[in-house]
Amino acid sequence: MIKSEIIDFFKQEFPHYGKISIDKVGNRSATVRHRIGREELRPGGTVAGPVSMLLADVVIYVAILGELGMLPLTVTTSLNINFLRKPSAKRDLVAHCKLIKVGKSLVVGEVNLFSDGDTEAVAHAVATYAIPPVSRA
Amino acid sequence: MIKSEIIDFFKQEFPHYGKISIDKVGNRSATVRHRIGREELRPGGTVAGPVSMLLADVVIYVAILGELGMLPLTVTTSLNINFLRKPSAKRDLVAHCKLIKVGKSLVVGEVNLFSDGDTEAVAHAVATYAIPPVSRA
Amino acid sequence: MIKSEIIDFFKQEFPHYGKISIDKVGNRSATVRHRIGREELRPGGTVAGPVSMLLADVVIYVAILGELGMLPLTVTTSLNINFLRKPSAKRDLVAHCKLIKVGKSLVVGEVNLFSDGDTEAVAHAVATYAIPPVSRA
Amino acid sequence: MIKSEIIDFFKQEFPHYGKISIDKVGNRSATVRHRIGREELRPGGTVAGPVSMLLADVVIYVAILGELGMLPLTVTTSLNINFLRKPSAKRDLVAHCKLIKVGKSLVVGEVNLFSDGDTEAVAHAVATYAIPPVSRA
Repeated sequence: MIKSEIIDFFKQEFPHYGKISIDKVGNRSATVRHRIGREELRPGGTVAGPVSMLLADVVIYVAILGELGMLPLTVTTSLNINFLRKPSAKRDLVAHCKLIKVGKSLVVGEVNLFSDGDTEAVAHAVATYAIPPVSRA
Repeated sequence: MIKSEIIDFFKQEFPHYGKISIDKVGNRSATVRHRIGREELRPGGTVAGPVSMLLADVVIYVAILGELGMLPLTVTTSLNINFLRKPSAKRDLVAHCKLIKVGKSLVVGEVNLFSDGDTEAVAHAVATYAIPPVSRA
Repeated sequence: MIKSEIIDFFKQEFPHYGKISIDKVGNRSATVRHRIGREELRPGGTVAGPVSMLLADVVIYVAILGELGMLPLTVTTSLNINFLRKPSAKRDLVAHCKLIKVGKSLVVGEVNLFSDGDTEAVAHAVATYAIPPVSRA
Repeated sequence: MIKSEIIDFFKQEFPHYGKISIDKVGNRSATVRHRIGREELRPGGTVAGPVSMLLADVVIYVAILGELGMLPLTVTTSLNINFLRKPSAKRDLVAHCKLIKVGKSLVVGEVNLFSDGDTEAVAHAVATYAIPPVSRA
């Protein structure tokens, strides 16, 4: 139920994220995917870095909404990403997030990104979100 | 001349980056901007984090092309971004990059992002690009 | 006065930091230095990375104490460092910090590290500190 | 055998790291620990952040030596660390590293740090090392 609620929330708030879909959410984790087409590629025939950054940011947001409920105002305070391998230009980019800290004011998520079907990550990210104070009341 | 060459390169390789424009390039630095509309916003009426990440990544790429010539295959190896203040929903997001290391194989750029006209940064990023070996020959 | 107070605080709390000294503090900034001897070096005859990490962490702490008063319980929540050039094995390592965000609960500092006398940074760091809630009362 | 070789190397090159010991190395991973005493603590009675940074940097170095052989000149190019929980002041700090990329010129390691015996990490780090070109010949 929380998953369908999050899907509805994204449709309403981020209608331009049509290429992103939510596979799973729950247990302090989430999995989302991004379809890859011409607009996601860069010279060298690979997925542009900012697509991975976007998906890393989104999957942590989804994991937080799944864990703490609908807190749309939670915002990223920092994000670090390392690119490890060249993603496939023909397959979905899939991001798995695990929340490694769920504090009162800060949540930290770790993300591995894969070309769909692969087992070796193409990128790894860690980001911190701030939970809005009003939600803590 | 290098500036117009980079603009042409972006038009050809990233035709979907129509909201991004290049203000300046040269002296190991660059300035680019992103128009802000409905698609760049997130709940809370502010610019979505991934827009800043995209622009930070692009402005370093532009500064590298300006410094080292047209090396389209140079790729991001890591990026770190800290969000400092809420950007304006009504003004362009402007990114200034200064290259703080230009090595043989790695280039590091530092980026400050502003809502157009402000003097306090809304975000700060540092990223490393790998220069493709063939370019070093 | 705040500078001498911070120096006393360090003598008491970090008596083993005898090679670190505080040059300046004030205006949301600070400068500290680390003497370099055999114990700070690593293979290749250069300063070991963790010495730069330590100094980056300390200089932000000093800048925060200078800005917000004696808040010893403020703690680092994240730190990102990029190594840019080989530091001198014979000169002090000097770190300059500028606080780029001073929020109610989070403070972000940017640090440039130099071999004493040089103008090109050997490393660049950004870190976030959490201000303890009790201090905000 | 590689483990004892690395232990000897540390004794010779880092004789002042007497509180650090190497538990395991192999399979693109390593585990090291740091004894905690008065000098490792900070106000609040917890382990100082730079001790975790040092140990994160060391455990990746050990994992690289274990994987690629004795390459003492490999150096850190960047490190990102997030602090998640307060470490115990009375137990060893233990760091586990997994190398998530072993490239020709760059190696990326991911590190989880624990208070000995705990299952929830007190900190999480990711760092990149550059492999010296001569080693690649």
